[in-house]
Amino acid sequence: MVVGFRGGALEGKAAIATMLDANLSRVKPGSWRVEGEASAADGITDAWFTFETAIARGKGRIRLKGGRCWTLLTAMRELKGFEEKQGESRELGTEHGVVTDRRSWLERKTQEDAELGHRVQPYCLIIGGGQGGIGLGARLKRLGVPTIIVDKHERPGDAWRKRYKSLCLHDPVWYDHLPYLPFPDHWPIFTPKDKIGDWLEMYAKIMELNYWAASECKNARYDAERREWTVIVERNGSPVTLRPKQLILATGMSGVPDMPSFPGAGRFTGIQHHSSQHPGSDAFTDKRCVVIGSNNSAHDICADLWEHGADVTMVQRSSTLVVKSDTLMTHGLGTLYSEAALKAGITTEKADLTVASIPFKIMHQLQIPIYERIKEQDAAFYDRLRAVGFMLDFGEDESGLGMKYVRRGSGYYIDVGASELIADGKIKLKSRVTVAEIKERSVVLSDGSELPADLIVYATGYGSMNGWAAKLISQVVADAVGKCWGLGSDTAKDPGPWEGELRNLWKPTRQEALWFHGGNLAQSRHYSRYLALQLKARMEGIPTPVYAMAEAHHKS
Amino acid sequence: MVVGFRGGALEGKAAIATMLDANLSRVKPGSWRVEGEASAADGITDAWFTFETAIARGKGRIRLKGGRCWTLLTAMRELKGFEEKQGESRELGTEHGVVTDRRSWLERKTQEDAELGHRVQPYCLIIGGGQGGIGLGARLKRLGVPTIIVDKHERPGDAWRKRYKSLCLHDPVWYDHLPYLPFPDHWPIFTPKDKIGDWLEMYAKIMELNYWAASECKNARYDAERREWTVIVERNGSPVTLRPKQLILATGMSGVPDMPSFPGAGRFTGIQHHSSQHPGSDAFTDKRCVVIGSNNSAHDICADLWEHGADVTMVQRSSTLVVKSDTLMTHGLGTLYSEAALKAGITTEKADLTVASIPFKIMHQLQIPIYERIKEQDAAFYDRLRAVGFMLDFGEDESGLGMKYVRRGSGYYIDVGASELIADGKIKLKSRVTVAEIKERSVVLSDGSELPADLIVYATGYGSMNGWAAKLISQVVADAVGKCWGLGSDTAKDPGPWEGELRNLWKPTRQEALWFHGGNLAQSRHYSRYLALQLKARMEGIPTPVYAMAEAHHKS
Repeated sequence: MVVGFRGGALEGKAAIATMLDANLSRVKPGSWRVEGEASAADGITDAWFTFETAIARGKGRIRLKGGRCWTLLTAMRELKGFEEKQGESRELGTEHGVVTDRRSWLERKTQEDAELGHRVQPYCLIIGGGQGGIGLGARLKRLGVPTIIVDKHERPGDAWRKRYKSLCLHDPVWYDHLPYLPFPDHWPIFTPKDKIGDWLEMYAKIMELNYWAASECKNARYDAERREWTVIVERNGSPVTLRPKQLILATGMSGVPDMPSFPGAGRFTGIQHHSSQHPGSDAFTDKRCVVIGSNNSAHDICADLWEHGADVTMVQRSSTLVVKSDTLMTHGLGTLYSEAALKAGITTEKADLTVASIPFKIMHQLQIPIYERIKEQDAAFYDRLRAVGFMLDFGEDESGLGMKYVRRGSGYYIDVGASELIADGKIKLKSRVTVAEIKERSVVLSDGSELPADLIVYATGYGSMNGWAAKLISQVVADAVGKCWGLGSDTAKDPGPWEGELRNLWKPTRQEALWFHGGNLAQSRHYSRYLALQLKARMEGIPTPVYAMAEAHHKS
Repeated sequence: MVVGFRGGALEGKAAIATMLDANLSRVKPGSWRVEGEASAADGITDAWFTFETAIARGKGRIRLKGGRCWTLLTAMRELKGFEEKQGESRELGTEHGVVTDRRSWLERKTQEDAELGHRVQPYCLIIGGGQGGIGLGARLKRLGVPTIIVDKHERPGDAWRKRYKSLCLHDPVWYDHLPYLPFPDHWPIFTPKDKIGDWLEMYAKIMELNYWAASECKNARYDAERREWTVIVERNGSPVTLRPKQLILATGMSGVPDMPSFPGAGRFTGIQHHSSQHPGSDAFTDKRCVVIGSNNSAHDICADLWEHGADVTMVQRSSTLVVKSDTLMTHGLGTLYSEAALKAGITTEKADLTVASIPFKIMHQLQIPIYERIKEQDAAFYDRLRAVGFMLDFGEDESGLGMKYVRRGSGYYIDVGASELIADGKIKLKSRVTVAEIKERSVVLSDGSELPADLIVYATGYGSMNGWAAKLISQVVADAVGKCWGLGSDTAKDPGPWEGELRNLWKPTRQEALWFHGGNLAQSRHYSRYLALQLKARMEGIPTPVYAMAEAHHKS
């Protein structure tokens, strides 16, 4: 909803009426116009529309059921008077005519690079220069919001390059575009990690982002009186103090790596590391490798180790949702993000808004029938996995991968081959167990069995993003903000109460001037727009009262 | 015409009938289908169509006048069985399933980089890595033709970066896209030189071109028996011998810089250089500068010097076509390449094919009325230029800039401000003179006047592209190939006989396996397709008889 820049969802007549009473006279929505033709199918009338408010132009989608409103999305597209320069309004690039103190593009850019963060303070500071920070940075650049992105790696894209060798994006190309500059049409369906690294590096350069590589944020504190952050950044080894008005943590939706503390781990004499540290499997041919965990990273790493001739055992402690990549494309993303969708006129923007137009409250209802079809189609595949003891699930309410992703951001594997290795016994499986202890050269499981190990990979996931706030700002701020991500669905790892939208993402938090940005490439692309508009509005002094800010019910 | 991969134009019933007799049974054109709706206006019926031949799919445009064919373009789009992988046929990017000797994208790319040119010979070698070489390289990459691009500069884009500081593209953004990856929609209208440099560098990387920077072609010779070139390239200072099957000179349509030899130049004690060597004007504040020439570079450099506080005189030896950049956009390119054109459904591809569909034989007829309007609209501006003695022309037949460009590639200035400085007397003008001699610190003109000079810039243009063949291969080969560029219009610097198409560009030449590629960004984009298809056909062993190859009437 555009109202009050909240980025939230409202459900039921009463809540909506209360919100409208409180906001309508200030927001002044109007100029509603249906865009294109409305369609009707399965008892639902469905239409796109445009509208305006006092300060913005927006786009939306409405679905009617029995003649009454079932779902309504209103999404801001631009702030009046602060439209992005593009198409007809793009810059000239040169100054025609007589200019005696003419400065070239390169001179102006060099000066900006030299001054921003030193003589001139940025309005925004983005911590983390992965796809999230870069996409948001590009939007802020087009909106004329002075921004620095800091990232600890040497080059943009290194966060991808430094992962295990076989990694490719698990989402298909049509879902992965960055804002403004889509991949060319020969781009592979599943981008290899080094190739997406190169794309991000190029993109940051072409979009003229003020990207500080080899820079690490050490500490940030907010001065509520001056309404300004003081942030210590170590750039190429030297400390720099930045004083931005807004701080955005784009450190990955996954938060800080969760490293378990199993008894005895300290005495292990082999190699042990978190999955985020796994460099690839070249060094582990003929080695005995134990991977603790059974989500995406665990599967990818097990397969990579096996392909390099290692002896691999996966330890599955809880059940996992598995869906074949092809099947997911056909029944899931493919309806909105594919060549077929493009041919049917569903542009990336339309697809993004379509996803956004389904309230989370009802999304699982639409997903359950899809997963019924998937379970049927791949029944033999699932039977083979169960036969070797693999614990399968499809979400507590059988609503599948997409819902698990927004509820907890974990608990699944998009199968690109490892499941076959497990079903065949090539990757050995120990399931329905936990880790009892680690010995000098083995892992002892809760059923008393012992796995000899030269390598242990802890594919044990990540904490909530507010863990980064604890690390960089303070535990007090992290606790005040509370858990990030998840809907409050009251399913595993997503405790209630119901929130209706992802916690703390892309919207004001309980710490003034602190924002969280993350998610997959599609979310980063789509939601960076709303985050950028909220930041731009604040910079321009447009009133931005926040309606009914969510409470922090959980600390992590 | 697609016939025989000639890339030529035919005029008149007899020539066309002879060509058809000779080729129809082999080429087997068919499946002609009108695309969209034909339109009729001003007595012309106009339609797009698609067709096929035995080996290719094509697209074309036909214009009927009084029910009979007036113009017909048939353009190959792809070779059957060798279509570019794109959209639905794009690569998967990863190998799903069990692959024990899996090699990552990076490993494959690193190996290719290490082997190509050493253990593995490229099929094509492109000399020159500007926009021409890079765009052609991208097309060949998508077609799977192993290609190396060599360029003497340290980085792709340096040929632009190293030019004078104030340089921006003179053509607007809509006209300048490279193949496959259009500029994002905020890209400035006239791209500054360093920015186009960055784009080219990024593009070469993202397109995975095998680009050898800091590499200079020293010598090339063709072995007619082995049908192979032997090319000595100095790469980072060390000689490498390459043995490509095809050699493409993409060294710029401008050829080798034309440095005049005025009497006495050797004794000049100031700084003197060709315009291509002019570094910018920072060092010339308060210096006396003489620029010999009155085309684009001369004007740009004069303005840049004046803006830096130099005392500048332009020496105009012959008349020049001047047209204001805005006016040109409105009356010229803008009808096909602009936001308005895009809104009217004229995509870049459609615009390119539209330009290609006007035979040069009639193009000047369509241009003359445009320049009548331009002369009328900017009459006051032209009067002011004439008043200070500036010699103006609009082409021998008043057909304007576009025709001068294809006839001789010189003789004009697209005004972005320098003309105002000339009309105001801020840039001094000496016209209707030639250079008599150069003295220690001055330039003596044919009217006896003497211009004191600390700097002389020779903005005296470039030779024909076959000058590069003379330099790199031999004078014999350069002479056999003959003059490049120009139509044989029998106007200044474009001697007859009439050729109908640009000499030697993008088509077989009188030296087997030697090709020329060049022109502005639009030509490089559009014609690189046909050149790439001709090269691909040869690599795949598809018969490519050449029909009626043009004779070489002029050596330079």
